[in-house]
Amino acid sequence: MTPSTILSRADLDFLLHDWLRVSELCERERYSDHSRETIDAVMDLSAELAEKYFAPHNRKADLNEPRLVGEEVELIPEIGEALRRFADADLVGAAMDAKVGGMQLPYTAYLACMAWFYAANVSTAGYPLLTTGNANLLLTHGSDEQIDRYVRPMLEGRFTGTMCLSEPQAGSNLADITTRAEPQPDSTYRLFGQKMWISGGEHQLAENIVHLVLAKIPGSPAGTRGISLFIVPKFLVNDDGSLGERNDVVVTGLNHKMGFRGTVNTAPSLGQGLHTPGGEAGAVGYLVGEENTGLKKMFTMMNEARLGVGLGATALGYTGYLKSLDYARSRPQGRQVGADPASPQVMLTGHADVRRMLLAQKSYVEGALALGLYCARLVDDEKSGSPEQAAAAKTVLDVLTPIAKSWPSQWCLKANELAIQVLGGAGYTIDYDVEQHYRDNRLNPIHEGTHGIQGQDLLGRKVLAGGGAGLTALTERITATCDRAAAADGSGGSGGSGDSHAPDGSHGDEAELAALLRPRVTRLIEVTTELATVGASDPEAFLADATEYLEATGHIVIAWMWLEQVLALGYRGAGDGSGGGSTDAFAAGKWQAARYFIRRELPIVDAKFDLLAAGDRTTLDMRDDWF
Amino acid sequence: MTPSTILSRADLDFLLHDWLRVSELCERERYSDHSRETIDAVMDLSAELAEKYFAPHNRKADLNEPRLVGEEVELIPEIGEALRRFADADLVGAAMDAKVGGMQLPYTAYLACMAWFYAANVSTAGYPLLTTGNANLLLTHGSDEQIDRYVRPMLEGRFTGTMCLSEPQAGSNLADITTRAEPQPDSTYRLFGQKMWISGGEHQLAENIVHLVLAKIPGSPAGTRGISLFIVPKFLVNDDGSLGERNDVVVTGLNHKMGFRGTVNTAPSLGQGLHTPGGEAGAVGYLVGEENTGLKKMFTMMNEARLGVGLGATALGYTGYLKSLDYARSRPQGRQVGADPASPQVMLTGHADVRRMLLAQKSYVEGALALGLYCARLVDDEKSGSPEQAAAAKTVLDVLTPIAKSWPSQWCLKANELAIQVLGGAGYTIDYDVEQHYRDNRLNPIHEGTHGIQGQDLLGRKVLAGGGAGLTALTERITATCDRAAAADGSGGSGGSGDSHAPDGSHGDEAELAALLRPRVTRLIEVTTELATVGASDPEAFLADATEYLEATGHIVIAWMWLEQVLALGYRGAGDGSGGGSTDAFAAGKWQAARYFIRRELPIVDAKFDLLAAGDRTTLDMRDDWF
Repeated sequence: MTPSTILSRADLDFLLHDWLRVSELCERERYSDHSRETIDAVMDLSAELAEKYFAPHNRKADLNEPRLVGEEVELIPEIGEALRRFADADLVGAAMDAKVGGMQLPYTAYLACMAWFYAANVSTAGYPLLTTGNANLLLTHGSDEQIDRYVRPMLEGRFTGTMCLSEPQAGSNLADITTRAEPQPDSTYRLFGQKMWISGGEHQLAENIVHLVLAKIPGSPAGTRGISLFIVPKFLVNDDGSLGERNDVVVTGLNHKMGFRGTVNTAPSLGQGLHTPGGEAGAVGYLVGEENTGLKKMFTMMNEARLGVGLGATALGYTGYLKSLDYARSRPQGRQVGADPASPQVMLTGHADVRRMLLAQKSYVEGALALGLYCARLVDDEKSGSPEQAAAAKTVLDVLTPIAKSWPSQWCLKANELAIQVLGGAGYTIDYDVEQHYRDNRLNPIHEGTHGIQGQDLLGRKVLAGGGAGLTALTERITATCDRAAAADGSGGSGGSGDSHAPDGSHGDEAELAALLRPRVTRLIEVTTELATVGASDPEAFLADATEYLEATGHIVIAWMWLEQVLALGYRGAGDGSGGGSTDAFAAGKWQAARYFIRRELPIVDAKFDLLAAGDRTTLDMRDDWF
Repeated sequence: MTPSTILSRADLDFLLHDWLRVSELCERERYSDHSRETIDAVMDLSAELAEKYFAPHNRKADLNEPRLVGEEVELIPEIGEALRRFADADLVGAAMDAKVGGMQLPYTAYLACMAWFYAANVSTAGYPLLTTGNANLLLTHGSDEQIDRYVRPMLEGRFTGTMCLSEPQAGSNLADITTRAEPQPDSTYRLFGQKMWISGGEHQLAENIVHLVLAKIPGSPAGTRGISLFIVPKFLVNDDGSLGERNDVVVTGLNHKMGFRGTVNTAPSLGQGLHTPGGEAGAVGYLVGEENTGLKKMFTMMNEARLGVGLGATALGYTGYLKSLDYARSRPQGRQVGADPASPQVMLTGHADVRRMLLAQKSYVEGALALGLYCARLVDDEKSGSPEQAAAAKTVLDVLTPIAKSWPSQWCLKANELAIQVLGGAGYTIDYDVEQHYRDNRLNPIHEGTHGIQGQDLLGRKVLAGGGAGLTALTERITATCDRAAAADGSGGSGGSGDSHAPDGSHGDEAELAALLRPRVTRLIEVTTELATVGASDPEAFLADATEYLEATGHIVIAWMWLEQVLALGYRGAGDGSGGGSTDAFAAGKWQAARYFIRRELPIVDAKFDLLAAGDRTTLDMRDDWF
């Protein structure tokens, strides 16, 4: 069988089973209905559906943007077909509780399955991403009645969901939203305002759309503490679950994007009187939880969406890598330096500079995938572990979330840039997928909190929370990995059964790699402590270079993920039929990518830490009129 | 007057006059018809034409790709109108000799004028870029009769030109082209073959198209030494200059690109018998110069095209920077850390992280523009200086050409990425120009020699040529600038009349910046010497990381350009009416961008040099089957 150019099943199996031991999760109460076999079955199905129903219309959706016709949005029919197949396979609720109709799959396995859809067609996969995030928020914060009325139909694929945060004048800064929610005598609300950048905000893919809308109730406190969260369905839902009147929420314009075109992006108006449910204007909304607690609740969805965005960015990088590799392996071009010009050409992979571009991609995308699944494993510990495990997982996950969102958005975009470069002129044409992946992926550093916002979140909130507990927990884990690597020293993984001496000099040099990582972890701790001191007296200077801090920390985390992966090689080959162990080409590739990243990419953090430690004021001192 | 968001005239004037002293060129014989006044007039005209006829259809050309209808290509009419205006203003031959109808403008001033067109509409400006390159090649290598027959009509805008190098199976490696040129009894040739990636290869913008085609004459040596160069006109040209028969060169397909869409990109077939000039199939071609010297001659055009590509990349970066600055200055969003949520929002420029993204762009695009114009100034020294000046200029220009092509292609693309980020979601939509600039600019690291090819050229040929004369000449110039900076130490430029202490602490710290640059120059020399030793025994290892070498050297060169610019600030204000000197906001901005680049970006070269010095073999050792 030709290997898929969507994703690598061998890599996913390695990460899920040899490294993250997802089967062990199945020994826990929550996941006791699952096993390696059920997980393999869902993965097989996901790969099949992705290949058969998602990938084929990826380009067509790009070339045929959504159109607004009256109040309705027209999409190519293949999107609806794909989403029906997805829902019919019970994948919307794959990770949700059985009691609401979910499959209660370990979240780690679920995200690995979702990666197939993102890689095959990120735009079409955007609809279930938003729907499951929406459903999970309501499962956490909604009433039983709200869950029955809105979540169950989402799991059946009859309803989809959105998150409506931004407004034309308020994007990164939600404190300034002006959408107004007027309380009504029947304890519903009527909403009036204009939202912006709402993905999936209008379409005919489902019977109904459940908008989750942030708005302010008159008299609420200024800023983010006065924001409440509402359910605003496109059609009101009757008590028996049937659809009622059309609500007064109408899309008045579409945003035309450079990529991600299959996910319709809308500007919906609420309460413009275009419909009059109950005889009057105003979008009917139902409060979720208490008043003025909306932003906090929305973070339930945003945190999940941030992992999803990171994984989507990763999947685009991964498929671009596989496609550029496929091209490089089959495209003859040039010869080795000094070769006879009459000798046959070599394949592109015969050139060190092309291997550099492929190794860079491999190190970014496989490192990012490892991080995404590691975070998912933490979610599983939160959901199914002991109280201690759950608390420990939450502490680390809080710190990792901004990195898991931003690092893949930056570096898997870079991977797509390199994929184009490997193909050369061909990569710049629409005859190949890589240019679309590059355009699609450019959205990821923007939505669900920009790159800059993630930096503020990491440095301004996460690492110092609980007296620095987040950073301590993270760096302890990284140091423990370094300790294992130092002890392993060529044995191919502590406790592992394999011999990590791969063919042709690809021996296991865990200790070398750990020695490169460890001083950077120490430096991270030192610099964070110094920055915290600055923060006490000058909050603006403290956060001025939060983005540099985010990027340096991200590189350390990915280096850690690489060290973890080579240590896990020793556990391979326990019955997957692929040969396995740590001596095959797969293992040699992991080793070389780990070396590539840790030797060649990790050192850029030093310059960033120098900058942070020096308290460089260049950007801080810059004035508007000097530009 | 609102400042243009196409380019900054103030910056161009500063670079041309205060720094590069283009007026001094006008004292030389070749440029004695010119002066600051004539240069200003051509610049005014270029800015006006760019704004009026090029910028307005930039988006329209992107949204309306060229279409192949039968043998002809249909373009939107605005492209033809713009090119007529351009030719009517005598700009095609602006830098060419008066004796062939050119304006004989200093090349430095000419490139500065061209930057307006690239920034306004890089796709439409692509046609004159190719035409002037083609004409210059024929002026250098063609016979008088060829010049009269083909070049003069190009200057009049009646003919356009192309360069036909690549073939479907031979892109970066031209040794493998198979287009065949059969000699005929009348000393013409008949060409047969398939070309690929030919920009401007078919259109109705001109009466005729002059293709410059690389082909092999049967019996020639294998490899690049067996390549000859031919003129293959779309229509044969009679002795009286009138058009004759349609030649047997026909476009059989168009390439559909992610950007740069207004420049039609074609796959032309030669000798398919679709036309039969003189009654038989075969594209009629006329040899330029001697047989088997074609590639060397084509480099005349390629070197010029490489400077042009670098400048085009720079111009796209520059206009994207100005547009994102314009947005950031007028878009209110968020507040300072800890501010009262009820207080008014600040503009985006009020956030340090946004200033970081703007300063990064400024440092890339103004640094790249300085490099492009510095190279143009070297071209002027070659053309008009004493034999010693000309030889010295050629030595440095040879080394700088791969950098002037690749550095802007990489970093001004990065600038466009940051421009999108400054705009956030808006930047990802087609309502703003920055997303198109990003797509357009992605071509630049590919065409006219990929990024990797530039690295091979720099390390494999240029720096070691003449016993290392190229690198010595370059580093001597950089060191001389460092010496001047160390001596200046706050005086605002050695010999300058101004006081470099700009407002609010923006004092002149030339010595600090020189001290950061100098050790990296030393390191460059050391590492080059080490690599040369490797090259003697292992050519593959020598060139394996040529790209890293290219990028590190590029950063040093741009840091040098920044030091040059701050030293030149002291010469400002000599009658340009802008206030001038080195104490105004313009000077403060230059200082801050110089600090930004040298303090914050230059240090990344250290990790690259460490890698090169260590002889890292990670990419070299990687094997195809390990991916």
